[in-house]
Amino acid sequence: MIKNLLFSFLILLSFNNYITAQQSDSAIIGNFYREALTSDEGYNNLRYLCKNIGHRVAGSIQSEYAVEWVYKTLSEMKLDTVYTQECMVRNWERGEREYCYFNSEMFGRKELNCCALGTSIGTGKDGIKANIVEVKSFEELQKLGRKNVEGKIVFFNNPAKQEFFNTFEAYGDAVGPRVHGAVEGARLGAIGIIIRSVTLAKYDFPHTGVMRYADSVTKIPAIAISTNDADLLSRYLKMDKSLEVYFRTTCEEFPEKVSHNVIGEIKGSVYPDEIIVVGGHLDSWDIGEGAHDDGAGVIHAMEVLRIYKALNIRPQHTIRFVAFMDEEIAQRGGRKYAEVVKQKNEKHIAALESDAGGTVPNGFIMEATDEQFNKISSFRNLLMPYGIYFFITGGSAVDIYYLKDLGFPRIGLMCDSQRYFDFHHSANDTFENIHPRELKLGGAALSSLVYLIDTYGVQ
Amino acid sequence: MIKNLLFSFLILLSFNNYITAQQSDSAIIGNFYREALTSDEGYNNLRYLCKNIGHRVAGSIQSEYAVEWVYKTLSEMKLDTVYTQECMVRNWERGEREYCYFNSEMFGRKELNCCALGTSIGTGKDGIKANIVEVKSFEELQKLGRKNVEGKIVFFNNPAKQEFFNTFEAYGDAVGPRVHGAVEGARLGAIGIIIRSVTLAKYDFPHTGVMRYADSVTKIPAIAISTNDADLLSRYLKMDKSLEVYFRTTCEEFPEKVSHNVIGEIKGSVYPDEIIVVGGHLDSWDIGEGAHDDGAGVIHAMEVLRIYKALNIRPQHTIRFVAFMDEEIAQRGGRKYAEVVKQKNEKHIAALESDAGGTVPNGFIMEATDEQFNKISSFRNLLMPYGIYFFITGGSAVDIYYLKDLGFPRIGLMCDSQRYFDFHHSANDTFENIHPRELKLGGAALSSLVYLIDTYGVQ
Repeated sequence: MIKNLLFSFLILLSFNNYITAQQSDSAIIGNFYREALTSDEGYNNLRYLCKNIGHRVAGSIQSEYAVEWVYKTLSEMKLDTVYTQECMVRNWERGEREYCYFNSEMFGRKELNCCALGTSIGTGKDGIKANIVEVKSFEELQKLGRKNVEGKIVFFNNPAKQEFFNTFEAYGDAVGPRVHGAVEGARLGAIGIIIRSVTLAKYDFPHTGVMRYADSVTKIPAIAISTNDADLLSRYLKMDKSLEVYFRTTCEEFPEKVSHNVIGEIKGSVYPDEIIVVGGHLDSWDIGEGAHDDGAGVIHAMEVLRIYKALNIRPQHTIRFVAFMDEEIAQRGGRKYAEVVKQKNEKHIAALESDAGGTVPNGFIMEATDEQFNKISSFRNLLMPYGIYFFITGGSAVDIYYLKDLGFPRIGLMCDSQRYFDFHHSANDTFENIHPRELKLGGAALSSLVYLIDTYGVQ
Repeated sequence: MIKNLLFSFLILLSFNNYITAQQSDSAIIGNFYREALTSDEGYNNLRYLCKNIGHRVAGSIQSEYAVEWVYKTLSEMKLDTVYTQECMVRNWERGEREYCYFNSEMFGRKELNCCALGTSIGTGKDGIKANIVEVKSFEELQKLGRKNVEGKIVFFNNPAKQEFFNTFEAYGDAVGPRVHGAVEGARLGAIGIIIRSVTLAKYDFPHTGVMRYADSVTKIPAIAISTNDADLLSRYLKMDKSLEVYFRTTCEEFPEKVSHNVIGEIKGSVYPDEIIVVGGHLDSWDIGEGAHDDGAGVIHAMEVLRIYKALNIRPQHTIRFVAFMDEEIAQRGGRKYAEVVKQKNEKHIAALESDAGGTVPNGFIMEATDEQFNKISSFRNLLMPYGIYFFITGGSAVDIYYLKDLGFPRIGLMCDSQRYFDFHHSANDTFENIHPRELKLGGAALSSLVYLIDTYGVQ
């Protein structure tokens, strides 16, 4: 395509009006991008994490292999400091492969692609079998009342809405039943719940994710089925309201275990005691390989260190990388990190985290004062040529949330969200679904913002 | 990931400061996006074009099936006008599957993944066999001179550079030998050329694309090999300079044929004689399915019509969709369209084309006066919430290029380029590599700009 315009695609030039005043920053950021795009080291690191270690739910043996591997990899980077930070984590195991089918006297038996929700209790080895009540919302469930729900399995079949441009909004809008469905079902006497996987994709992968119980409410087992199978089950239910569903899960929670955050630092040349922390979470769910969630984020943040070393740039403030443990279940790593920061009274300038996948980065979302937001947004014109255009408030990322109240901005890398929930929390979250250039751009974007914060501060 | 920020990912809201003055435009554009994202019609149309028709090089029987299918599909949309526009096209056929290997006395024989370049002559059924001279540039070739090149096959092994952020720039930088290599090689007595496929991906797909001969220079056959095989061949050449390459292609050019552009219109309610033209090119290369290049562009542009009809919006100016024929080889469709516009003295307001793939749209690149550019760029704040942030000059798209000198702006839809050249001109350009939501966003972006131009003009 487009022969005559190929040579004139000089996007960088067209932004010259923005950047003339900051030519040398622009050149340095250009170097960050060049280094990120021409090195395969981060991509190969992600391959190792996904393929040689694999999924790594907090408390698992793989999660500790991942801790060892990150520690070893940081050590080989000749950083100024590398250490681990102990934290206790919950220890939930999925157990045997889950099994689910429906049985209809009219239509026979059909197996459904399913997985237990994270931290769910198991059904016991005999499984559970009951009639189904399908609802789209908690309101609908309430209206049905105990008489229609008691002894049954509640099927929450609320599709994530395609009309949202940002799929994180679609996810937020649809995820309620996954988190709270078991409690709401149990309050009305349900014996289990099935949720429609929280994804915009129409396919056969079931998606897990954390769910919660309430102290005063009976714990009932919870599974997700794929969106294809949710549509199928719903269709069959319309034809045969008496059909029964069986499912069997053997997940179980064991006593808490010791795990670790992994930390590596390049000391600041001017302000060694003032820290810019940048991280991702090392744990993942226990299906797939945790490539997008959040292997990519860990690699993005490690790339900040690697790129600084490769370009031989010494930061003014200390850049601290943290691979956080246990984001998915109880955020024990993030909590521990914040606890230690407070104990030691460490001074932070800013906290950055990448936990929005390994697709093309397109901005930063932050929790910051107006002054901080304005300062950070002033970097926008330097990053626009690389497609970093969203500078917005409204959140950041989970692990750095616990640093709130310390007065410095918390910043999440935003990545294009269109494909993210095709992978998220499913067996489809594999290394093959990460594009090397898209991954590399995440590391470049994060490095560039760290550089600008290190150089100009946040207020 | 990111539980606490999911509900606060209210990107649209954060842009409210930009859009309060244009609330109703914002609402209308929201409707365009909702309609695009919640309908599968465009995606299913692309499936039909790719799977039931397949690739469709100009002059092929498939390209005429595609013309018939677009005509039929437009007719079913109950537009005001549907017609075809005849044009003569070149008629090049690839012939039998290409075959290439190298043979080394030291290392034996190895087959290479190859394809003929578009419009190349064939080798004849016996193929050609010769020693290889590897170069990275025309300059290097010139330095070698006739004594080192005569009777040999020139291997242009210049990798597309990863360091470019926009991969169209990497393509433009690397594509020279594909287009002009056969002429430059033949001038020094080479008997054939092999180029490294013009892609940033490292894999086994060879990439075709148009090449040119010069009247006064002997025509020699030209093929591309995959990037993996280019690396392999280069490695073996270093170890054995005497190795020989054989390749065989049976491509051939036949007399020109009649083909067609396909046109459909929604008449303007206020200015029926003033036209906003929006299109993509219906032809593709003859390997793969032409999904990204340019099935996606055709669907994007058809979506403009579909969305206007679905939302029951009557434009003020006539919206004219054109599926252009023969972009890849000689642009006979684009030339014919411009010729007829001039003959009939038709008044156009603007021309838009989508020919940058089916990935996430991120802007518009245009050829326009300063005044037009400023006017169109003033729409930016309305489109930023949907990730449309590049508004730049420097090109547009090939088919609408021939409308230059008529004084109205020509505008190309820009899409995220990171993955594009993984597909472009290769057997990897298939429907499976199009993401439904990403495709839909392209139609929404194009519709939104058409709406804004229809409402506010271009100057």
